[in-house]
Amino acid sequence: MFVVIIVQDLMHPYCHFISLEVTGLSRCALHTLPSVRALSLTVPVSQGVPRSLWKLGRLSHVAIAVPDLEKATALYRDVLGAQVSATVPLPEHGVYTVFVELGNTKLELLHPLGEKSPIAGFLQKNKAGGMHHICIEVDDINAAIVDLKEKKIRLLSPEPQIGAHGKPVMFLHPKDCDGVLVEIEQA
Amino acid sequence: MFVVIIVQDLMHPYCHFISLEVTGLSRCALHTLPSVRALSLTVPVSQGVPRSLWKLGRLSHVAIAVPDLEKATALYRDVLGAQVSATVPLPEHGVYTVFVELGNTKLELLHPLGEKSPIAGFLQKNKAGGMHHICIEVDDINAAIVDLKEKKIRLLSPEPQIGAHGKPVMFLHPKDCDGVLVEIEQA
Repeated sequence: MFVVIIVQDLMHPYCHFISLEVTGLSRCALHTLPSVRALSLTVPVSQGVPRSLWKLGRLSHVAIAVPDLEKATALYRDVLGAQVSATVPLPEHGVYTVFVELGNTKLELLHPLGEKSPIAGFLQKNKAGGMHHICIEVDDINAAIVDLKEKKIRLLSPEPQIGAHGKPVMFLHPKDCDGVLVEIEQA
Repeated sequence: MFVVIIVQDLMHPYCHFISLEVTGLSRCALHTLPSVRALSLTVPVSQGVPRSLWKLGRLSHVAIAVPDLEKATALYRDVLGAQVSATVPLPEHGVYTVFVELGNTKLELLHPLGEKSPIAGFLQKNKAGGMHHICIEVDDINAAIVDLKEKKIRLLSPEPQIGAHGKPVMFLHPKDCDGVLVEIEQA
């Protein structure tokens, strides 16, 4: 026997989930049911836990916090020969940014802007600079957020914010991501 | 006047350099010389310093050192839904590795293997794990190494080593790269 439940979360009207529950079936019996096999192509069953329909995408960027933005820009432009952008002040995010183009993805050099810059504390602990976060695209950030909350991944804000690229983003707690600050961004 | 010098470094027989020296010319005069303009398409002149012919390429991977490889693999596979490889032991590098496929690039989860693992010290300082290095491809690692030495970037080994992907690699000193351990890899 199997039951397919289609749920629309009224608190998140843009998020639709298909929950697949398989009860009373051995793994062997599951493989003999063509209808369940076909469904599993789009709704993978992982250890009995239903998976939502959002998908992880490409690495958008690696963010590097730097104490000296001109020096860091010169490293990537003049020493390593990469294409770099002009310095972009993002006062609403408390950072100056320089984008380093690597062809398949970007590095983002970050330097504090203003007294309440979110990277000031990081640079106090890492005076030479260092990798601050990675950002990975997702195809449906609202679905991802609901799913990650259900999977007990702590999020750093209650709702998605508009990120440096003008798209909704959410940060996941580093303690739930192997010490890495992971940002997800609507593709 | 301009002088083009083609140099083959006998110590590095695979490295050929074209040095372009422009003397006695103002920036304005340079722009009026079509022959120099044409040459500058392949040999960019940056503030009077000749540039060698190696090029930076794509981001090969972001390496993340993790204290619990199974837990980290489960995060990317089961929670974030990425494709991950089986665990690959690399005893010659002192690490176990799991590759996380992101479409345009990879994450590489690293866990110590053996007593002399190069990431053991990192995990002692960063017990929860963290971003260990970034790896960027180059089209000519020997040329890059000679050029980076000339530009006073310290390298972590005297010669390139064979990296986890079976290709020559070299690590650049984090103190010369804004606190980031940067690996370059022959594309």
